[in-house]
Amino acid sequence: MSDESAIMAANAAFYAAFAAGDFAALAALWADGDGISCIHPGWPALVGRAAVIGSWRDILSNPARPQIVCAEPHAIVDRDHGHVVCIEVVDGTPLAAANHFARIGGVWRMVHHQSSAIAQLASPHDDADGHSLH
Amino acid sequence: MSDESAIMAANAAFYAAFAAGDFAALAALWADGDGISCIHPGWPALVGRAAVIGSWRDILSNPARPQIVCAEPHAIVDRDHGHVVCIEVVDGTPLAAANHFARIGGVWRMVHHQSSAIAQLASPHDDADGHSLH
Repeated sequence: MSDESAIMAANAAFYAAFAAGDFAALAALWADGDGISCIHPGWPALVGRAAVIGSWRDILSNPARPQIVCAEPHAIVDRDHGHVVCIEVVDGTPLAAANHFARIGGVWRMVHHQSSAIAQLASPHDDADGHSLH
Repeated sequence: MSDESAIMAANAAFYAAFAAGDFAALAALWADGDGISCIHPGWPALVGRAAVIGSWRDILSNPARPQIVCAEPHAIVDRDHGHVVCIEVVDGTPLAAANHFARIGGVWRMVHHQSSAIAQLASPHDDADGHSLH
């Protein structure tokens, strides 16, 4: 399996674990230790295993959590690290996401996740495409 | 200089180039080639040097671009890759950002940037802290 395929598989496993509500599987996908971070939509950054994994425990324990479908994944790999950019369709709303992985002991483990809203409406500060200028 | 200090310096150079409107410096901070990506606030993902660097050219050429101050940077380094999570204070509004770097030829070059809004108001789908549940 190519590195790109392996990292795409790890990315798919992340969304499969979320869809199944499988906290143990999702927690195992993340790297051990405190060198991990996560920025959920609308949240400030979480750093370290307790904060990051704790946030996923809370989210997965919520029966009203959304359904998330990963669309248009694109993998970029460089030596022992790589990331997948994708669209997360969250209850029908598209978010822009990136999932970063490190190869640790031959296994691709998640080290950073960030998902953020895509602007749907233009505002006075947006460009002609409706995107914020930063 | 420790790896953490070096990656923090690269992160600071990124914001200094933005503040100075120095497109050449900012473009040089990014890795060469198409293994780079960027998710601006409210934007879908941009992938590849033309799209990513072109977006920064457009932003820096806008005289009404915001001022960005990087606050609370925290570096995580693993071998030849690392990232800095920080708060971007954009014209007074805090955003959650992560800047990812790879060591290429001994120099830390940017490979991914993502910056996203931090929710300021609770909505029916938010938890008690006012954050979206995903």
